[in-house]
Amino acid sequence: MKQLTIIFAFFFILNSCEQKSTISSETFNPDWSETFPGIWKATVNQPEDFNLLSVANKAPRSETLNKKSNQDFPISEEEIKTFTKNGKTYLRFPLEKEEQIYGFGLNFKTVQQRGQILRLHVDHYGGEDNGRTHAPVPFYVSSKGYGVLINAARYIDVYVGTGVRIDTKNPPIVYDRNAKDGWTSKPYSDNLEIVIPADGVELILFAGENMLDVVQRFNLYCGGGVLPPKWGLGFWHRTPTLYNTADIQNEINGFAEKDFPLDVIGLEPGWHSKSYPCTFEWDKTRFPNPAELSKNVGEQGVHLNLWMNPYLSPDGILYDKMLPYSGSHTVWNGIVPDYTMKESRKIMQDHMKKYQLDTGMSGFKMDEVDGYDRWLWPDIASFPSGLDGEQMRQTYGTQMMTLTDEIYREKNERTYGLIRAANAGSVSYPYVIYNDYYNHKDFITALINSGFSGLLWTPEVRASNSEEEWLRRMQTTCFSPMAMINAWADGTKPWSFSTVYEQCQEVAFLRMQMLPYLYSTFADYHFNGTPPFRGMNLEPGFEANLEVKQTKLDGSKNPYAEAVQREVKDQYMMGEFLMVAPLFNLDEGRKVILPKGNWYDFYTGKFVGNGEIIQVENGFEKIPLFVKDGGIIPMMPKIRQTIEWVKNTPLEIRVYGNTLGSFILYDDDGKSFNFEKGEYTTKMLKAENGSGTVEDLHDSENWIYGDVNWNFMTKE
Amino acid sequence: MKQLTIIFAFFFILNSCEQKSTISSETFNPDWSETFPGIWKATVNQPEDFNLLSVANKAPRSETLNKKSNQDFPISEEEIKTFTKNGKTYLRFPLEKEEQIYGFGLNFKTVQQRGQILRLHVDHYGGEDNGRTHAPVPFYVSSKGYGVLINAARYIDVYVGTGVRIDTKNPPIVYDRNAKDGWTSKPYSDNLEIVIPADGVELILFAGENMLDVVQRFNLYCGGGVLPPKWGLGFWHRTPTLYNTADIQNEINGFAEKDFPLDVIGLEPGWHSKSYPCTFEWDKTRFPNPAELSKNVGEQGVHLNLWMNPYLSPDGILYDKMLPYSGSHTVWNGIVPDYTMKESRKIMQDHMKKYQLDTGMSGFKMDEVDGYDRWLWPDIASFPSGLDGEQMRQTYGTQMMTLTDEIYREKNERTYGLIRAANAGSVSYPYVIYNDYYNHKDFITALINSGFSGLLWTPEVRASNSEEEWLRRMQTTCFSPMAMINAWADGTKPWSFSTVYEQCQEVAFLRMQMLPYLYSTFADYHFNGTPPFRGMNLEPGFEANLEVKQTKLDGSKNPYAEAVQREVKDQYMMGEFLMVAPLFNLDEGRKVILPKGNWYDFYTGKFVGNGEIIQVENGFEKIPLFVKDGGIIPMMPKIRQTIEWVKNTPLEIRVYGNTLGSFILYDDDGKSFNFEKGEYTTKMLKAENGSGTVEDLHDSENWIYGDVNWNFMTKE
Repeated sequence: MKQLTIIFAFFFILNSCEQKSTISSETFNPDWSETFPGIWKATVNQPEDFNLLSVANKAPRSETLNKKSNQDFPISEEEIKTFTKNGKTYLRFPLEKEEQIYGFGLNFKTVQQRGQILRLHVDHYGGEDNGRTHAPVPFYVSSKGYGVLINAARYIDVYVGTGVRIDTKNPPIVYDRNAKDGWTSKPYSDNLEIVIPADGVELILFAGENMLDVVQRFNLYCGGGVLPPKWGLGFWHRTPTLYNTADIQNEINGFAEKDFPLDVIGLEPGWHSKSYPCTFEWDKTRFPNPAELSKNVGEQGVHLNLWMNPYLSPDGILYDKMLPYSGSHTVWNGIVPDYTMKESRKIMQDHMKKYQLDTGMSGFKMDEVDGYDRWLWPDIASFPSGLDGEQMRQTYGTQMMTLTDEIYREKNERTYGLIRAANAGSVSYPYVIYNDYYNHKDFITALINSGFSGLLWTPEVRASNSEEEWLRRMQTTCFSPMAMINAWADGTKPWSFSTVYEQCQEVAFLRMQMLPYLYSTFADYHFNGTPPFRGMNLEPGFEANLEVKQTKLDGSKNPYAEAVQREVKDQYMMGEFLMVAPLFNLDEGRKVILPKGNWYDFYTGKFVGNGEIIQVENGFEKIPLFVKDGGIIPMMPKIRQTIEWVKNTPLEIRVYGNTLGSFILYDDDGKSFNFEKGEYTTKMLKAENGSGTVEDLHDSENWIYGDVNWNFMTKE
Repeated sequence: MKQLTIIFAFFFILNSCEQKSTISSETFNPDWSETFPGIWKATVNQPEDFNLLSVANKAPRSETLNKKSNQDFPISEEEIKTFTKNGKTYLRFPLEKEEQIYGFGLNFKTVQQRGQILRLHVDHYGGEDNGRTHAPVPFYVSSKGYGVLINAARYIDVYVGTGVRIDTKNPPIVYDRNAKDGWTSKPYSDNLEIVIPADGVELILFAGENMLDVVQRFNLYCGGGVLPPKWGLGFWHRTPTLYNTADIQNEINGFAEKDFPLDVIGLEPGWHSKSYPCTFEWDKTRFPNPAELSKNVGEQGVHLNLWMNPYLSPDGILYDKMLPYSGSHTVWNGIVPDYTMKESRKIMQDHMKKYQLDTGMSGFKMDEVDGYDRWLWPDIASFPSGLDGEQMRQTYGTQMMTLTDEIYREKNERTYGLIRAANAGSVSYPYVIYNDYYNHKDFITALINSGFSGLLWTPEVRASNSEEEWLRRMQTTCFSPMAMINAWADGTKPWSFSTVYEQCQEVAFLRMQMLPYLYSTFADYHFNGTPPFRGMNLEPGFEANLEVKQTKLDGSKNPYAEAVQREVKDQYMMGEFLMVAPLFNLDEGRKVILPKGNWYDFYTGKFVGNGEIIQVENGFEKIPLFVKDGGIIPMMPKIRQTIEWVKNTPLEIRVYGNTLGSFILYDDDGKSFNFEKGEYTTKMLKAENGSGTVEDLHDSENWIYGDVNWNFMTKE
């Protein structure tokens, strides 16, 4: 590389009027070196030092990765090609005929991405899967059992099997559209092409035993999944803007009176003395004593989470200190700190510790770090560290995560919160993505996609046009990483729709009952990188059923008679055993696709089918849940708050089907980082033919459960 | 610049691991030099040799430009700033508080562009004004009387008064959203910022007496507007795909029998032996003798226009010849010739001359040169001339224009046709843009926007959901650069909706009657750069009436309570005197905004208002047309085809109002380029107080008109 650069430099001197900064336009094959079993790295040309993983700044989980199985390099190295020209790096990967591609972050309408063209650009979601989304993670997983991470903090263009090259080794059949026979607007393409607007790039390629194994390796490489504090998995309620101390207490009282789960209250704009832009200082009228407030609500089992956006108001004490470390442009007239600099990090962290952490606040909802273009800095913006607007845009969410994660770690206190932007490397951070898009079905598609990219996503509830919609949304949010009503603008409560209140209450308590299962599922995320919420395509035995449907020509509406793709994007797995198939407003029931193997109704234990499509009627008030053969779901009694999850909590272990099943039940103190030092307990639950056993695996003194009641749900 | 480059080169040698190809990140003011009165050019850093105007390859109309008035440099030179970094050039222009910005090509929903963020990228229009459109011309016009062209064949990002800089000289007031008073999601920004992904750029700045003068200078700089052949302004009908010789004749017979205007028949896919990809050879079954066909239809007063897209089929004789001059990627399995090379141009031009021009074909409809991404080559594509996919994408439409324009010029025969992509510099080419978007209102907004950017656009008619919609669309297309039914997929005819047939017939004949006015209007486009169809904002005396309306907060639908802008985007000028205010389907009438000065009903000559808003009822079967005071509209008798527009055609000159008015009536042979050598005639029509005069201006032997009948429409 060095030699090439020098040649270029002289070339440049000799041709000072030459416009193109061509470094090398020759195509070559990247040089891959294996860093962990089944994980290879390649450096193309001169990658930028600043990249997605450098910002996330987490070491790979080497110990676990080194125990992974060895894999052959999964694709032909010769067919991976790259060249760099005019400051851009071009990549080409081969695609086989039936290969399907998943990932590329938080898409809302499509799961399978082959055929898509995306410009991966952190942004609010604008209603179209075009790469502009809250977490456009440049990582994809192939149905052939491998994945690729393009580790660049740039707007990356990806052509996922769309372009057909002249030199393709699989020339598609050329049809004559006049003859109408066999012609398609999208001829078969056998490559995935990528443009990175930089003079080089770092690539990481993952191989695995199957797609899930690939995702696990990717997650472990990025530091392993987050393990939230126990309270983070309870029920969340965000109060309307401008609520004050008394309003907060009233809201908490309401939940207690109505007997509805509540672990976290979110404060929205109104706690800062000024917001949009923000001061990060308390409004003394509404919150004269925040420490006392958090102490009071803490005694009632409630944690407080603070909304914020990171753009600093000229009226705050942070402003003058931060000005030298801020970018050229403002957001809503607030300055934009550059958190890649240690000075700015220290200023903000010291401030947060004093004003937020020391007053007992449990975490943040970090808003508006995603987009959209009209609010945020333009690409032309410059930052004092030397980064440009594009690099900052792609990583600002991650910067906010690391900034806040560090100070909670310093306190040895886990946090759990919300963020509107993430990217590759976010997997180990305690933040769940949310947005304003509010389409129930698409929210579930996003939940499915989150599992391919090391992300967490909440299908939060805000408002509703009908009682049924309210119920269906409440059910979905209770089967997600964060069960939440976000009532900042609408002022809704769980009981806003009284005719469905009981059913809402029931599903919220069901979530609470299932926390032993869910918490262990998150432990599996942490230790093994297994996404806790994931699409059916990551489920062994699931047939993709990707259907391509021809359409009718219409001169103005469909001039190319484009075929459409139908895919499964409304059912998903929560943990190893549970399949969730939400119902929707005004639906007349729904179809559920069962993977191969026997499946059972969660509520009754009855057999429902095997590798087939079943129909669920809407009369069914509960959210449809299915458990696979051998499924073990450890549950606890109904509790309203996680503070009731105490020593000697009895366990009900539900068992489904008759096959031998096993589950690793995990526990720890639920709030500190001591588990990272080994202070946790795991026990192996095993069940077969009506009898169950509990075996010790990793032991500490923290085991919380008391009596065990094995409940074999399937009787025949 | 040279010195800087050398420093950079050494820096690069010393820091071979340094990732950034920074050439200069210092901000400086571009150095402007005046090239014509009121036109300045600046070269920022090292612009690429290949740019929009180099592709268009037309010399400025120097003689006319040199007669233009002198102007002061219209903005503060000091406040125009630029820097180049990491292969990108950044520009900043100041904006005054009340300044409005127009242009940036063919937008469909907005006219005023301040507040927009656009990535100018040639593409099919996807329903949102985000810069992706058929003609994303990087030229804007300010209400302050100047315009700027960014002459780069790149995807250009523009932030039209959105970002607020820390160092702004007009700091906006900082509001507290908590307090709700005065806060807006879009604080006042006093600059327009631009990012060009290249190491430099050429800028051209135009000043003028008003916005229209600025647009005229821009158009003249790019070569002056096109003057279509007379037949091109008659009625067009595109027949369904796979029509054969007999079908074409039947279609022509139908128009004759129904007594409906017809000058051009368009042939859609089916004339090529194969299409998608295309052969450019005739299908011998459907068209055994194309030369005879064109001769036959020519005798019936009909010209033939050929649909095509430029992607070559492996089954055609062009394929092997063109392969060495084609890009790395295919489109629908056809190769993509690189028409920036003289070899490929000659191959294609020779072929077209033999197979299309020599068989008497009058021109082309050049389809699918715009996008969208899934059909066209990816940005990663490379082309044998060394251009990349992005440069090719931004200019392929223009390349096709120059390619075909040259061979018709060689024949001394004007052509007129359709194209789906254009850019800066298209103004003098005989092509009208069209697309599949088919929204009637937005089609009119596009017509308005075309006038700011040197473009022509047709609101063609395809299908309709109702009789009224059909009529309203037919009316609009008759008041556009190309009056056309595009029935390729739908097979509609002018008489498809029988209850409104008479009204359709009437408006089509009205267009024919107005051709003397319209043809002279195009002559003004050619000689003076005056856009023949243009928005009200280019009309002196028109109050912009840009209304900003506050909206209501909604947690999921409108979380930032974004203000919306209301503007006039459904009425426009055709030529100097005529205002067109189309009615829409299911409308209950409409409002029409009259600029200052007296306005008159075109049909009755009655006074309708002055600088006010009037209401037009839908009961009105005709398209509402208004003429300004002193307006002169030269018309001729009803003819069905332009072949009837012959020597001694009598003239009816309609005069409106009482003020002294004048109009330059233009004529020439209507088909050759001899007018460029001075072979044309212009006469000055003047009217006042009930008497009119005709004065000779530029004389040749081609004067076509006979008796003159002055018709003073306004009586009181």
